[in-house]
Amino acid sequence: MSAPLAIGIAGLGTVGAETIRLLQAEAETLARRCGRVVDVRAVSARDRDRDRGIDLSSYRWYNAAPDLAAAGDIDVVVELIGGADGVALDVAETAIAAGKALVTANKALIAHHGTSLAERAERTGSALCFEAGVAAGIPVLKVLREGLVANRLGRVYGILNGTCNYILTEMERTGRGFDAVLREAQDKGYAEAEPDFDIDGVDAAHKLAILAGLAFGIRIDFAGVYTQGVRHVSAVDIGFARDLGFRIKLLGIARLTEHGLEQRVHPCMVRLDTPLAHVDGTFNAVVAEGPAIDRVVLEGLGAGAGPTASAVIADILDVARGVRTPAFSVPATDLAACSTAPMECHTGPYYVRLSVVDRPGVIADISAIFRDEKLSIESLIQRGRAPGEVVSVVLTTHDCEEAGMRRALTAVEKLAAVTESPVMIRIEHL
Amino acid sequence: MSAPLAIGIAGLGTVGAETIRLLQAEAETLARRCGRVVDVRAVSARDRDRDRGIDLSSYRWYNAAPDLAAAGDIDVVVELIGGADGVALDVAETAIAAGKALVTANKALIAHHGTSLAERAERTGSALCFEAGVAAGIPVLKVLREGLVANRLGRVYGILNGTCNYILTEMERTGRGFDAVLREAQDKGYAEAEPDFDIDGVDAAHKLAILAGLAFGIRIDFAGVYTQGVRHVSAVDIGFARDLGFRIKLLGIARLTEHGLEQRVHPCMVRLDTPLAHVDGTFNAVVAEGPAIDRVVLEGLGAGAGPTASAVIADILDVARGVRTPAFSVPATDLAACSTAPMECHTGPYYVRLSVVDRPGVIADISAIFRDEKLSIESLIQRGRAPGEVVSVVLTTHDCEEAGMRRALTAVEKLAAVTESPVMIRIEHL
Repeated sequence: MSAPLAIGIAGLGTVGAETIRLLQAEAETLARRCGRVVDVRAVSARDRDRDRGIDLSSYRWYNAAPDLAAAGDIDVVVELIGGADGVALDVAETAIAAGKALVTANKALIAHHGTSLAERAERTGSALCFEAGVAAGIPVLKVLREGLVANRLGRVYGILNGTCNYILTEMERTGRGFDAVLREAQDKGYAEAEPDFDIDGVDAAHKLAILAGLAFGIRIDFAGVYTQGVRHVSAVDIGFARDLGFRIKLLGIARLTEHGLEQRVHPCMVRLDTPLAHVDGTFNAVVAEGPAIDRVVLEGLGAGAGPTASAVIADILDVARGVRTPAFSVPATDLAACSTAPMECHTGPYYVRLSVVDRPGVIADISAIFRDEKLSIESLIQRGRAPGEVVSVVLTTHDCEEAGMRRALTAVEKLAAVTESPVMIRIEHL
Repeated sequence: MSAPLAIGIAGLGTVGAETIRLLQAEAETLARRCGRVVDVRAVSARDRDRDRGIDLSSYRWYNAAPDLAAAGDIDVVVELIGGADGVALDVAETAIAAGKALVTANKALIAHHGTSLAERAERTGSALCFEAGVAAGIPVLKVLREGLVANRLGRVYGILNGTCNYILTEMERTGRGFDAVLREAQDKGYAEAEPDFDIDGVDAAHKLAILAGLAFGIRIDFAGVYTQGVRHVSAVDIGFARDLGFRIKLLGIARLTEHGLEQRVHPCMVRLDTPLAHVDGTFNAVVAEGPAIDRVVLEGLGAGAGPTASAVIADILDVARGVRTPAFSVPATDLAACSTAPMECHTGPYYVRLSVVDRPGVIADISAIFRDEKLSIESLIQRGRAPGEVVSVVLTTHDCEEAGMRRALTAVEKLAAVTESPVMIRIEHL
């Protein structure tokens, strides 16, 4: 056996506690697997007295996490504090400056500072590991970086937020509205008390930016992610989607296009016969596409103490085993800077739902606007018949450009017979 | 950049040719990703003159693959010859004896000799890599060995043969019988001219034995795999399965039980709401279950030149990058020997279809036999009503033991009203 690997853990929330519990419970197995003892030496958290259900008595305690990161006898600093800046960034920079390995579950930190941290880590010889930051229990970063290393990936996309997927799944299953299902998700612990980061798509955007950086060998560009959450998805649209052979999923999609790097997070209609259509509840899934492999789909739990601790420990064991690959597949100094493909250039089919007064000529007016913007209508269905009353008109298009679609919707909204803002949901070719 | 990595490739079928084509086409990208040039130096095959659509002129040619494996200037020997013994084994043993890395796509070789090859490789310091041998394009071995290293896996199972999955998918989609669909699969290149290895489940059993060895840290026991193929699956049963909310899939399932190691490959009924129910055509999928992760599902193409070459090159790049983990997760000398759990001890629900003459008392006779064997019937449906004629009786059971089920079926078959051997298909709790 090699010398023990000395670990310091900063942040003792549910993930930190589960990481320690697993390291204790599986100590012998893990040592056999990596050929050395994984030795937790020090921990740090805000509240020393809280009962976390684990025995911390044999670990050195630090009130200040950066002091733990600087401690001379620690080989691997595990950052489980969270937040893009502040203490978490301080801990990361301190560990890397000291040439220690940094293992983190912090997607915000990596989405904002991943490229520069990787550059620093290469200079100091540190390992920078963040498998737990994207899709937790699914080892997707290792798969992209190592398992699919032979591939020039064309597109990477997935269901990257379990809270949103749970809400959409429950809305479809029960027919209930967004607010009721969100409250239930909060009661069950599937949504945070402050759910905005999840339901507005920011969490998924963090993960997508990291995936894109790794998949395409580019500098992370979180600011370039077009982001729209699930707050405005209605039970009505979920029902119409089903009638049309689709389900609505919040996807993150990244692709290199002729216009630049496309990164977008928004509700999508996906066909029932595609793999992601059947990924339900709190499960996440990531799809990588390339010419040699066609596609590889990875599905698992993208959040929670167990799945996240599993990924944190996998990173620790990579360090223990000496498994070292560039954080973003190529050296950080080789990462290319990509311009952002404007969302207006996006091309694809669209679903549009209009609330219109049921009277002669309305469909003709709408059709004329779509024709003038060169938007080819694939299907147009008026739901119900109620002369003089408001009815739904649902239409789907063939591939068309977002810029024209936006202009058409602005024009349609101005029609006297149209009583509400049009609902537009992009249909994805998967 | 480090020194170039010298590669010798033995076997130039479709996988060998695609591996070389990709290494040539992506040479620069791969060098950036692994920090050194991947330099093919030598090749070997039976027929030097065949046109493989690639330029081999700059590579040294060997008529005898073991000579290539022994060549002093080769760092990595890539064995793509196939077969559990003979030349492939000779090449593997020669490479390992010389301390070279061995990369192989040969599942038969590893299923039969994997443990002893791993022991030899550890003695000589060789890397032993066989990602391409299981589910080709899906990097499942890396995921089990590294990505999920923190987990004590409870069960590993999957759709491990694309030919069988294609046949079952097409039988269900078209309602046609096994023989017609097999012929079509052969015409399309999805089934071999000599399809027995695939359709009788042997290929899936090879892969399952390798997965089980790695997942549970045990010596590979290919002989202990209970194996039954898809030859006897009928369109009738596929239809009844669908009526009952199931699909029929050929699964490989491995689990450590109180009776020993359970390894079985056979047609299974899986519920429509489980992930594997939607893995269609030539796709493969593997599911790993453990307490921390719940489950991780990996789906992709399990055969074909592109997916297999992708895995071969991933193994080569692991060697280039110095990524080295024990072939079966722990050192080969630590692998435990497990006894085989007898199939008679298998417990689960069952689907049974009987062909019986429609007359009073038959159902009572069948029910009595099941009752006497303590087999709890969940549903029993006579399909059609045709007094005096032969009709189908379909029944499903709650969990019961295979030994009792087999005795019951033997007894049922002896009833005068039963006109054919009963059909039994196991229902899987997934």
